[in-house]
Amino acid sequence: MKKIKIALLGAGTVGGGVWDILQTNKENITRNCGYEIEVEKILVKDATKKRKDGIPENLLTSNFEDIIYNDEIEIVVEVMGGIEPAKDYIVKALKQKKHVVTANKALLANHGNEIIKLAEDEGVQLYYEASVAGGIPIIQTLKESLAGNKIEKMMGILNGTTNYILTKMTKEKVDFDAVLKEAQAMGYAEADPTADVEGYDAAHKLTVLSSLAFGTSVKFDEVYREGISKITSIDIDYARELGYVIKLLAIGKEDAGTIEMRVHPTFISQSHPLASVNDSFNAIFIKGNAVGDLMLYGRGAGDLPTGSAVVGDIIAVIKGKDKPPVKAEEDTSTVKIIKPMGETESEYYIRLIVKDKPGVLGTIASLFGKHNVSLSSVLQKGEGVPAVSLVFITHCTREADVQEAIEEIITMEEVVELANLIRVENGKKRAGAQ
Amino acid sequence: MKKIKIALLGAGTVGGGVWDILQTNKENITRNCGYEIEVEKILVKDATKKRKDGIPENLLTSNFEDIIYNDEIEIVVEVMGGIEPAKDYIVKALKQKKHVVTANKALLANHGNEIIKLAEDEGVQLYYEASVAGGIPIIQTLKESLAGNKIEKMMGILNGTTNYILTKMTKEKVDFDAVLKEAQAMGYAEADPTADVEGYDAAHKLTVLSSLAFGTSVKFDEVYREGISKITSIDIDYARELGYVIKLLAIGKEDAGTIEMRVHPTFISQSHPLASVNDSFNAIFIKGNAVGDLMLYGRGAGDLPTGSAVVGDIIAVIKGKDKPPVKAEEDTSTVKIIKPMGETESEYYIRLIVKDKPGVLGTIASLFGKHNVSLSSVLQKGEGVPAVSLVFITHCTREADVQEAIEEIITMEEVVELANLIRVENGKKRAGAQ
Repeated sequence: MKKIKIALLGAGTVGGGVWDILQTNKENITRNCGYEIEVEKILVKDATKKRKDGIPENLLTSNFEDIIYNDEIEIVVEVMGGIEPAKDYIVKALKQKKHVVTANKALLANHGNEIIKLAEDEGVQLYYEASVAGGIPIIQTLKESLAGNKIEKMMGILNGTTNYILTKMTKEKVDFDAVLKEAQAMGYAEADPTADVEGYDAAHKLTVLSSLAFGTSVKFDEVYREGISKITSIDIDYARELGYVIKLLAIGKEDAGTIEMRVHPTFISQSHPLASVNDSFNAIFIKGNAVGDLMLYGRGAGDLPTGSAVVGDIIAVIKGKDKPPVKAEEDTSTVKIIKPMGETESEYYIRLIVKDKPGVLGTIASLFGKHNVSLSSVLQKGEGVPAVSLVFITHCTREADVQEAIEEIITMEEVVELANLIRVENGKKRAGAQ
Repeated sequence: MKKIKIALLGAGTVGGGVWDILQTNKENITRNCGYEIEVEKILVKDATKKRKDGIPENLLTSNFEDIIYNDEIEIVVEVMGGIEPAKDYIVKALKQKKHVVTANKALLANHGNEIIKLAEDEGVQLYYEASVAGGIPIIQTLKESLAGNKIEKMMGILNGTTNYILTKMTKEKVDFDAVLKEAQAMGYAEADPTADVEGYDAAHKLTVLSSLAFGTSVKFDEVYREGISKITSIDIDYARELGYVIKLLAIGKEDAGTIEMRVHPTFISQSHPLASVNDSFNAIFIKGNAVGDLMLYGRGAGDLPTGSAVVGDIIAVIKGKDKPPVKAEEDTSTVKIIKPMGETESEYYIRLIVKDKPGVLGTIASLFGKHNVSLSSVLQKGEGVPAVSLVFITHCTREADVQEAIEEIITMEEVVELANLIRVENGKKRAGAQ
């Protein structure tokens, strides 16, 4: 049997998973790619540290030069995460004509374009399935299976931590802070949960997916981003009453060459396939103009699911390694316009705390009307107490109109505060819009 | 821009869909594969018949030799269906070193091994994503993305017609015959519905998937098959009461080199992701030893979804066409044993019609016990009438034991009939089993 040598950069959760899969499934993997895969070197911070995961000590090195200048190593697998030094290592590996597999979403979201171009220029392969949604084959599906489609819309639950928190809040009626603390204690959430909870992680992944889905290069800072820390049990109860659940969705759409990308908590109908994606599962719902509705569901994180995607990529590289690379055509027609958030359209759930006085509802409704925001339902609860929740669901409306209406409404003396504003994804278009 | 010429065999539903997609998404497709795709010829039965679908008359031919001996045609796309003459055409095309894309499940289920080997021998590419589950990228996922996994289990809703019928029966409490008639009137079911309703279509697809998932060559007649025509509203009501829905599942499992493949109506928990796959949607739920639980959901039929898979395959062929083909290693270790149906294990829902006499339940329960069938629940309804339904759910049991118990039970004078026996998929193993 032919052999191929690879190196891992990193031996953390994902690196350990890759190592385990290569051992456990050796026979299947060898059959599927026609080569026996040998891990020649593993880059770690401290090569003298005792390891629990069965990785032989003699494979460990803390010196990247042991890898980059080893001509027998044909594939470099980057599973260390973070932008530097991962980027530096990947660039050097590509320049040494080594194929690269990476699981690094932050790197791809910020420098994907540059790295993909470098791999093309060097005539080597770059695969990154594990960078988005762990074991779910979304990258390959967008690149290959749906290559005959125009992707109109993607909606993803791309962050397991926030989906776990929202599921717990919904099922057990507990508040955000309590669930977050519990998730941290159980190791499901980081000590500093910002990247997950505030939507940065999902936005990184949406950037990677949008570049592929819309055939253009988009940047991380073009994604509108809002986290889940403001979601309360009250909002979840209203959602339920109105036939929705609240999910942190990463939404990408293309319409007539204009792209919108946003990550925010979203009301989604209880009957939508994404609504029953619970706990730490991820899913991506795609609408293509040929394939119609498609959803991929699975484990978005964890050593083995993410390792599964990395090993799938390693096998793909091996299958393609002796073939001349296909160089992408330069195509300037793929530059697309990013729609400003104010121009996006959606229905809105708006919860205001108001003083329970006669005429308040009328005034607010008029102000919405003044800004072209048309209402589809109004709910009022807690009658009799001095301040009450007043909940509005709008028809499909331009974001800027809603924001301007809110700006004026909260100056009203009777309005205590805007308790929440959550977008509602219904797939409907604005009346009169094209 | 470089051009590539292809031929379509067939211009029915799928052929029409492929044609439409190639026109509508021309720009995207050209960008994704680097070639402008030109349909050079379309094989139809009657080339003089007026067509509604905008296909220019001069592309039509009823003579396969116009295609096979046209050296400019590099890819032959078979979307005619049926075994002959499709098989003959594909064999000839491969021998003429033309790449082939096919959507033909019956052909692959019966002769897949031979055709795949021929393509390898001729050094050309053969793709068949559209043969299973329309636009859902399950073939590519099994072949590529999950190549690092050992697939332990697949459960698929692979037939849209039966899923539509079961969904209607469940939601509207109508009986099978009535829904089937309605589906036929609306064109959702064929005039002769046998292939769908009796599970042949799903069994064809399961054969194709099992060969890939378990890395061995399996045959269509090795699949156990049972249709949905015996399912009644009464069974659906009991399923609901017990926390299940009834789906026609195609199940493939591998355990220690032994494979089981079966298509039959199945009780599945209301909380399982497959339970909410409704109407004519398809889905495949996979358990891999690395990726964990994965589900792919989408449109399993229709001109555009199936066409999406065909066009995805055409693009894959184009991307790979100038590369030397990788020949699979001969590997005799992949011959695996097919488990006889009697050796498979499951929980069972068993509904008997019995005369309502004292002692009947005791006798039946003892007979189950005699055959090692252990019961987890018993339900009796319709007390007071001469014959009543007696419903049993068993613990996980060997199929042969259940069948032997039933055989003895139905000889009892008090037992009117076995109204239904439906397997329950719970993912549990038999107590004491390894």
